[in-house]
Amino acid sequence: MSQKTWGGRFQGDTDKRVEAFTESISIDRRLFRQDIQASQAHARMLAEVGLLSQNEAQDIVTSLEAIRGQIERGEFKFSTELEDIHTHIERALIELLGDVGRKLHTGRSRNDQIVTDVKLWVREAIDEIDARLRELQASFLSAAERDRDLILPGYTHLQRAQPVLAAHYFLAYIEKFQRDRDRLTDCRKRVNVLPLGAAALAGTSLPIDRDSVRKQLGFDSLATNSLDASSDRDFLIEFVFDLSLITIHLSGWAEEWILWATTEFGFLELPDSFCTGSSIMPHKKNPDVLELIRGKRSSMHMLRSYPH
Amino acid sequence: MSQKTWGGRFQGDTDKRVEAFTESISIDRRLFRQDIQASQAHARMLAEVGLLSQNEAQDIVTSLEAIRGQIERGEFKFSTELEDIHTHIERALIELLGDVGRKLHTGRSRNDQIVTDVKLWVREAIDEIDARLRELQASFLSAAERDRDLILPGYTHLQRAQPVLAAHYFLAYIEKFQRDRDRLTDCRKRVNVLPLGAAALAGTSLPIDRDSVRKQLGFDSLATNSLDASSDRDFLIEFVFDLSLITIHLSGWAEEWILWATTEFGFLELPDSFCTGSSIMPHKKNPDVLELIRGKRSSMHMLRSYPH
Amino acid sequence: MSQKTWGGRFQGDTDKRVEAFTESISIDRRLFRQDIQASQAHARMLAEVGLLSQNEAQDIVTSLEAIRGQIERGEFKFSTELEDIHTHIERALIELLGDVGRKLHTGRSRNDQIVTDVKLWVREAIDEIDARLRELQASFLSAAERDRDLILPGYTHLQRAQPVLAAHYFLAYIEKFQRDRDRLTDCRKRVNVLPLGAAALAGTSLPIDRDSVRKQLGFDSLATNSLDASSDRDFLIEFVFDLSLITIHLSGWAEEWILWATTEFGFLELPDSFCTGSSIMPHKKNPDVLELIRGKRSSMHMLRSYPH
Amino acid sequence: MSQKTWGGRFQGDTDKRVEAFTESISIDRRLFRQDIQASQAHARMLAEVGLLSQNEAQDIVTSLEAIRGQIERGEFKFSTELEDIHTHIERALIELLGDVGRKLHTGRSRNDQIVTDVKLWVREAIDEIDARLRELQASFLSAAERDRDLILPGYTHLQRAQPVLAAHYFLAYIEKFQRDRDRLTDCRKRVNVLPLGAAALAGTSLPIDRDSVRKQLGFDSLATNSLDASSDRDFLIEFVFDLSLITIHLSGWAEEWILWATTEFGFLELPDSFCTGSSIMPHKKNPDVLELIRGKRSSMHMLRSYPH
Repeated sequence: MSQKTWGGRFQGDTDKRVEAFTESISIDRRLFRQDIQASQAHARMLAEVGLLSQNEAQDIVTSLEAIRGQIERGEFKFSTELEDIHTHIERALIELLGDVGRKLHTGRSRNDQIVTDVKLWVREAIDEIDARLRELQASFLSAAERDRDLILPGYTHLQRAQPVLAAHYFLAYIEKFQRDRDRLTDCRKRVNVLPLGAAALAGTSLPIDRDSVRKQLGFDSLATNSLDASSDRDFLIEFVFDLSLITIHLSGWAEEWILWATTEFGFLELPDSFCTGSSIMPHKKNPDVLELIRGKRSSMHMLRSYPH
Repeated sequence: MSQKTWGGRFQGDTDKRVEAFTESISIDRRLFRQDIQASQAHARMLAEVGLLSQNEAQDIVTSLEAIRGQIERGEFKFSTELEDIHTHIERALIELLGDVGRKLHTGRSRNDQIVTDVKLWVREAIDEIDARLRELQASFLSAAERDRDLILPGYTHLQRAQPVLAAHYFLAYIEKFQRDRDRLTDCRKRVNVLPLGAAALAGTSLPIDRDSVRKQLGFDSLATNSLDASSDRDFLIEFVFDLSLITIHLSGWAEEWILWATTEFGFLELPDSFCTGSSIMPHKKNPDVLELIRGKRSSMHMLRSYPH
Repeated sequence: MSQKTWGGRFQGDTDKRVEAFTESISIDRRLFRQDIQASQAHARMLAEVGLLSQNEAQDIVTSLEAIRGQIERGEFKFSTELEDIHTHIERALIELLGDVGRKLHTGRSRNDQIVTDVKLWVREAIDEIDARLRELQASFLSAAERDRDLILPGYTHLQRAQPVLAAHYFLAYIEKFQRDRDRLTDCRKRVNVLPLGAAALAGTSLPIDRDSVRKQLGFDSLATNSLDASSDRDFLIEFVFDLSLITIHLSGWAEEWILWATTEFGFLELPDSFCTGSSIMPHKKNPDVLELIRGKRSSMHMLRSYPH
Repeated sequence: MSQKTWGGRFQGDTDKRVEAFTESISIDRRLFRQDIQASQAHARMLAEVGLLSQNEAQDIVTSLEAIRGQIERGEFKFSTELEDIHTHIERALIELLGDVGRKLHTGRSRNDQIVTDVKLWVREAIDEIDARLRELQASFLSAAERDRDLILPGYTHLQRAQPVLAAHYFLAYIEKFQRDRDRLTDCRKRVNVLPLGAAALAGTSLPIDRDSVRKQLGFDSLATNSLDASSDRDFLIEFVFDLSLITIHLSGWAEEWILWATTEFGFLELPDSFCTGSSIMPHKKNPDVLELIRGKRSSMHMLRSYPH
């Protein structure tokens, strides 16, 4: 008989190539913290409404904590057979707690679970990127103050147009980054609506308390329609779009500085520690870092390099 | 000598192929109302600060009104030679008023003029699309009330999953359209910042009163950095993104109804007046309208068909 | 009763908004020459196999010629009600010839008709673009010969790397354009397969002679599977892709010359007749043409500006 | 002093964050076989023209073989500090052979080396994908023979149009896959031109014999212009485009079968071993594999899952 959680009526095993093709664990393992956080909140709520005993909920919360530690220390065994992060963590929980572990999935589905995990992840990412943009604004502000008396040619069509203050140039980027931050703040409002409770698509008839989970996880409000909530990924597309506008701004800035670092423009010299050279042309000093920033306009790159 | 406004030092005429290649009038003529509206506000402001006399400003405002009438009635002659909508309207103004017409361009550039025009246009588009989405929500609400007692199969993986109320199905779309409207509202905040005054890129040393123009045109605030304001098109990309998410929602809905209208599903029958047929297969009733909605996922289509 | 060719069983008229939404005549009217050319070949073939009399075929061919003349002289009335170019031309033919006009559609469908038209159009476009690329190669060759003794800095990372001959620089582009031409030649092979005869999707039981049509229209071979032939648009995507690589090459070249025309690089001076200026900055000479070439990387632009 | 091959004139070390940001070894390590293959051919050629002794070349070839074995067995240590696959292999070679290892880089640059490696990789990928498409065609042909007598509804607009033979349906896909294979064959011609010898961008003054390398590596011809050859990536874009058309075909087929596997259509039943189920809805049998094929339309997915 199939070992899958959904294997009941299936005859014979899943084809091994299917497991390799349909697995998502190589991607969604990065969601382990969020998955555990949401499961802990769900367990506490199940105890509040009487679907779990207090002891069961406590055991689940503690065991999930232990599983998190294992994953963080690199001691957890991931396997393509177990498809996704939810199945991995649930299986590990059952190994620790037996049937009590099985009870955690009461009143929810992987469909509302994954979108909750992703929303928690995106919310953290927004907060971190916002903080980095704020730092970047501070750096540009320092540069504006440092170069207070410097005058640059202002260009249109890459032809010299009118002189501008270097400070004015740096402050222009602070405006752009501020709009980026405002967009992230707007996106965060739409992220911060709790989908858990939507179950597979039609909600659940069990007496769960969604507002308890909402408070525990810091969401602003509850999604109102289960069909919408279980399938909505608008927030993710919007987040990726916001990232892509940020990279457009960074790309424009990098392009300018690459130009300014040429022999012909010669407006600035980049530090050795931020450049690379060439083995056969020892006079070269290449602005690789700026070139990669310019090239990483694709938001997916930024998404992929996000450090979790 | 060149007839161009910028022709001063140029020897000989612009190559005719260059005029045909660089013209934008075939595209930006749709901005004529916004260009005139912004120019009228600019003229009144110039009089307020003493750069025009009251009479001159009044003549300009009245003449621009006349030009708008000509364009609306199809009596205005457009020409590739005059490049863009700004040049067309300025030239017509000079023909009516002589040197007074030339004074209108005091303290501004086509660079801040075009972005102001586009912002006025996008603001109107947002308001109109928001109103249409509200109507669409009302239609879906009516459908939910009408089919109050109907039960549909709910699908995941296009396999029947759990029964859902038809009302629940219709209400799910109201959620999606509400997020679309919220995104448009957020975008509108970033649209509604006045760039006029940035001139070519470095502002102007003339004593213009940007706040007077802001109030006349209904902008919320003034752009603070001229380098940023004259080149910023973030708002336009964001608007196009918002449109593309709307079309994704409409496309998903159309896809469902195309399926439901098949012989095999048979959940609904489309009215004859919203279908087309086939000359050689007289039994056919084709859901063309839904298919086109499904296909017009590209936001550019929506942008292009916007009725101005 | 409906006036549509497919209107038989429909009760009541098509909603006017549907006509406006589903029409394609504003786009496919540019196919009128190809539509007439294919219809003439189809008529001659119908006479060869005895489905039309020689006189009927001759009348159709002559009348189609007259219709082409009307369209070319701008005397033909286009109407949204008649949906597409096929319906327009068929209707005009019926007006000239009565029932004989109706017979033209024997053994074909608008489904195989449109893909035949588009293939004829793309084949012409390929041949014209190939000729232009050959001219462009000749221009670069002339430049290589003219600047035979000139030495340029060769750049990597936009830093001076090794000196190169200007001739070497120009010849590099000839290589790129040659690959572009080779790709167009490869695409043309897949374009030049005749789909006519596939009818709506399942072919026709009438004794048509597809090879006669093939020879008349200059196709290399016949599509073998009607389901594939009536729906295949691969060739169009491939053509658009080929165009987009061409624009990437042109864009790279334009980017280099924009840089070389700056005050800072100063490698070349563009002729006045290929630049534009600024009204408020009379010293400016802007490389607009190059900037537009750089920006028109999107193949759709190139497709749209194709001169038919 | 810097440990970099290009570190000569640089003062101080590269910033650690720069190394992490600019490294490509996490991506280009998959090119190790091609890098070694091309280096072995280069070494043999250097001996032929007298730039290496026969013994030196033989030691290099043998040592590279040993390095390949180490990498294949997972015994090779990769490090972000060493940036890319070329540097890793060169450093390992120098550790084995001392100064002789350094001589391998004579007359070439990482610029022509990387594009040669990538061309070898793409050529193998084309051959493997072509073989898989041929197998797929054979499968569809078997299905056509098996269902020889079966009649299906043919659809247009997803409405039943005309009956078609199931065999006709299967054969249509053979046509599509044949065009895909033809496109790959055309792309392969442009891949199979040897860039090695272009060096950084301007070739080399050393008396290398490019034709010897060409023959050893099985390329059809030599790239003629070094500026073009060292920077050309057209072939890669074309390859990715070809993949994307293949996935469009596969996606269309998967979409049809997902539909046919619904309760409502019921044309086919998928085997248990190629479906997944649901823990809370035990009656479900989900066509995940087809859904993932449908969704992997993005060519980048296919590129990433290519098994090297």
